[in-house]
Amino acid sequence: MSTCMTTPFDLHIANARFVTMSHNASGYQILSGHLYLRDGKVAAISPNRLETPSNNVLDVNNKLITPGLIDCHTHLIYAGNRANEFEMRLNGVPYQTIAKQGGGILSTVRATREASQQQLTELALPRLDGLLASGVTSVEIKSGYGLTLKDEVKMLRAAKALESYRNVRISTTLLAAHAVPPEFSHCPEHYVDLICNEMIPYVAEHRLADSVDAFCESIAFNLEQTERVFHTARQYGLAVKGHTEQLSNLGGSALTAKYQGLSADHIEFLDLAGVKALADAGTVATLLPGAYYFLRETQLPPIELLREHQVPIALASDLNPGTSPFADLTMMMNMGCTLFGLTPEETLRGVTANAAKALGVGSSRGKIEVGFDADFAIWDIDHPAELSYLQGVQRLFARLIQGEVCYV
Amino acid sequence: MSTCMTTPFDLHIANARFVTMSHNASGYQILSGHLYLRDGKVAAISPNRLETPSNNVLDVNNKLITPGLIDCHTHLIYAGNRANEFEMRLNGVPYQTIAKQGGGILSTVRATREASQQQLTELALPRLDGLLASGVTSVEIKSGYGLTLKDEVKMLRAAKALESYRNVRISTTLLAAHAVPPEFSHCPEHYVDLICNEMIPYVAEHRLADSVDAFCESIAFNLEQTERVFHTARQYGLAVKGHTEQLSNLGGSALTAKYQGLSADHIEFLDLAGVKALADAGTVATLLPGAYYFLRETQLPPIELLREHQVPIALASDLNPGTSPFADLTMMMNMGCTLFGLTPEETLRGVTANAAKALGVGSSRGKIEVGFDADFAIWDIDHPAELSYLQGVQRLFARLIQGEVCYV
Ligand SMILES: [Zn+2]
Ligand SMILES: [Zn+2]
Repeated sequence: MSTCMTTPFDLHIANARFVTMSHNASGYQILSGHLYLRDGKVAAISPNRLETPSNNVLDVNNKLITPGLIDCHTHLIYAGNRANEFEMRLNGVPYQTIAKQGGGILSTVRATREASQQQLTELALPRLDGLLASGVTSVEIKSGYGLTLKDEVKMLRAAKALESYRNVRISTTLLAAHAVPPEFSHCPEHYVDLICNEMIPYVAEHRLADSVDAFCESIAFNLEQTERVFHTARQYGLAVKGHTEQLSNLGGSALTAKYQGLSADHIEFLDLAGVKALADAGTVATLLPGAYYFLRETQLPPIELLREHQVPIALASDLNPGTSPFADLTMMMNMGCTLFGLTPEETLRGVTANAAKALGVGSSRGKIEVGFDADFAIWDIDHPAELSYLQGVQRLFARLIQGEVCYV
Repeated sequence: MSTCMTTPFDLHIANARFVTMSHNASGYQILSGHLYLRDGKVAAISPNRLETPSNNVLDVNNKLITPGLIDCHTHLIYAGNRANEFEMRLNGVPYQTIAKQGGGILSTVRATREASQQQLTELALPRLDGLLASGVTSVEIKSGYGLTLKDEVKMLRAAKALESYRNVRISTTLLAAHAVPPEFSHCPEHYVDLICNEMIPYVAEHRLADSVDAFCESIAFNLEQTERVFHTARQYGLAVKGHTEQLSNLGGSALTAKYQGLSADHIEFLDLAGVKALADAGTVATLLPGAYYFLRETQLPPIELLREHQVPIALASDLNPGTSPFADLTMMMNMGCTLFGLTPEETLRGVTANAAKALGVGSSRGKIEVGFDADFAIWDIDHPAELSYLQGVQRLFARLIQGEVCYV
C-alpha cells in the first residue's frame, strides 16, 4: 500500500490532550490537538485538523491520552491460592511451619504443575482484567512455577494464549531459574545443567520467550549459576533480565549489565558500583514497590543514585501469589510515589517509556510519537499526576492496541 | 401483614456459603445452606431448603456471601483536586510553600464552598462507585470542608442525596470541628461558639446528621474545645465520634468515651489508659491504615492492647483528598493486615460487625443473622481471607441492600 498524502488515515483521534513522554530525561510533554493513525501506528500528530481524510473519527472531547501502560515484570500465570498462607502468617504461624505444611513458592509450583495449559490461561484472566482496567496494554509474564521443561513451556504457552482472550500484548520470559525444584534440592547444579542444556535451547528454538530471567539470591541461585544461565541465553540469542539485589548485594545487577541485560529488577540493596554498571550498559532499573510493601521491607532502592547516574527507572507490579498479590498498576504508581519517593512523572515514565525499554521495545512502544505503535490509554482525568494519586476510582475511558479501540 | 408460616418469602438465596460474623469475639462462622429474606431483612437461615414458598429465587451456586461491607469513616464529599499538591510535595516543594500557594485542607474548603450541592453529589459519584465495587453497602460521610453553617449543611445534604443516585445507605456526620476556617484564625473560640450555638442545633433540628465528630489535635481543636462540641451534641441528642490520637496523645479518645462516643478514629498514639476508657465505654476503635500509609507514619496503633482489652476494632478508608485518596475498602483491609498486622478475620469484622457498631447500627447491620437487614456482598471467592489478600481483581458478583439485588 502506498501512503501518499491522500491515503486516508485509519483513525483520527480528535480534540485530544496527549502526554507524549517523548523527552528522554524528564517532562511529561502534554500537547493538545489531533492524532492520526495508520496501520496500527501513529502516522501524524498535529495541533490542527489535517486535510487528509480519515476512515474513522474518535472525538475524545479533551480527555487525556497517555501511552498504554506497560507492566514489565509479572508472574501472572500460576495456579493455587495462597490466601490461607497469608492468613496463617498473620495469625502468627511461623514460616517454618507453613513451609513444612507445603506452603511457600513450592505450593504454587505443585498447583501449577497439576494444572493444564488451558486452566492456567483461564485462571490468569481475572488478574489480567485487573491490570487492563488500570490502563495496561502490554504485559510481561514470566514462567518459573513449572521448573521442568514441560511445565515451563506450558506456562509460557499459557501466557501467550492470553492474547486470544483479551486485547493485550504479552511478552514472555523464561524464569526457570526462579527456585531450585524439590527433586534437585541436593544437586542444584544439575538443575542449572537442565536449564542450560535443554530448557533454553528448546525455548529459543520454538520462540517461546523473548528473554531469560534468573533469581540471583542466597535463597535461589548464586552468581556463578546465574552467569551460566545468562551466558547460555545470550548464546541462543535471547535477551536477559535479573531478579537482583532484592534481599542482599550479590552483584547480580552488574552481572546482568555485563550481559547487556534489559533490566535489573528489585535492586533494594544495589550499591554505587552496581548503579554505574547499569548506567554504562543502558540496563533499566525496574522497581517493584508492591513486593517491598507486602514484605514490609525497610531497605529502599537507591533512587538518588539512579537519578544521578541517569539509569532509566521502570516500575512494575511483580504480580505474584507470594509477595505481590496486586493486579493494579496505578496502585503500584502510588506506592512508587508514597514508599519510594518517586515523582508522579517518574512513575508514569516507569510504566511507559522505561517499561518499554525494559522489554526491549523502547523504539516502538511507551511514547506517543510518529512511527510508534498506537498503544494508548484514554483517561477521564485532568492531569497525569492523578494516575499515581487517587486510587480505586475507575478513570479509564478506553485503551487502544495497535490502533484498535477497546472499551473496558 | 401477618407473617404466618405460609406467607411467602420475598427472596430465597439458594446454595450459598455465608460468613455470618455472628460470634462477637472471633471466628468467621462460615455456614452453607439457604437464606430467606422478607421485608428487607433476613427471615430465616437454614441448612436445608424450607417448604415455605418464595416469590423469587437466586441460586448463587456456592458463591461466598459476607455482610455488605461498611465504610464507617469517609470524607467522600469534596470539590477540587489535590493531585498537583501531591506532585509538588514529591518534587521537593516544602509544605510551607504549598500552604502559601493556597494548598492543603483550605484549598479543599475553598473549592467545596464554591461548589453547589448538586455538583458536590456528582463529583462524589466516581469515588462512591469505587467503594461500591469493593463490596460496600453502607458509607459514613462527614462534612468538614464547608466550615460555615450554609456550606456544612450543603455537604450533608449532598452526601445524603447520593442515595438517590446509587443503591447505598449513607450515614452523615457533622464535622464542622475539622479545621478552624481562615476567617476565624484569630479567634477559634468564636468558631466553636458558632458550631455549638448554630450548627449543631440546626443540624439536629433538621435531622441532617446522625452524629457529630471533632478533630482533637494540636493543629485543630484542643481538648476543651472538643468537649464543648461533644457536650452540645449530646444535649441535642446526637451521638459523637472523634478524630483522636492521630499525631499525638491529647486524651481525645478518653474524652470521646466519656461522652459514650460511637468511635475513636486513627488512635496511633493511644495509650493504655485510653484503651481502657474505650473498653469501658464500649467505644469502637476505628483504624485508618490508608492515612497511616499515605503520610508514611511510623507510630502503629496499639493493636495488642486493643485485643487484650477487647475493644471492637473497625477499619475504614478515611477517603479524603489530603491524606487518604483511596476509594477501595478491600485495599484498606490489605493495608490493615500488611501494615498493622491485623488478621484477615479482624479486618473483615472491622468492615462489617464492628463498622456497624461504629455507626450505631450494630443491632441491624454488619452480620448475617435472622432479624438483621439483608445487606450482603456476594463474592466469587473460596474463602473470606481472599478479600484482604489479592487486590485489583474484580470478585464482586452482586450486592444486596435491604434485600434488593444490585449487580455491579
Ligand atoms: Zn518477580
Ligand atoms: Zn478523617
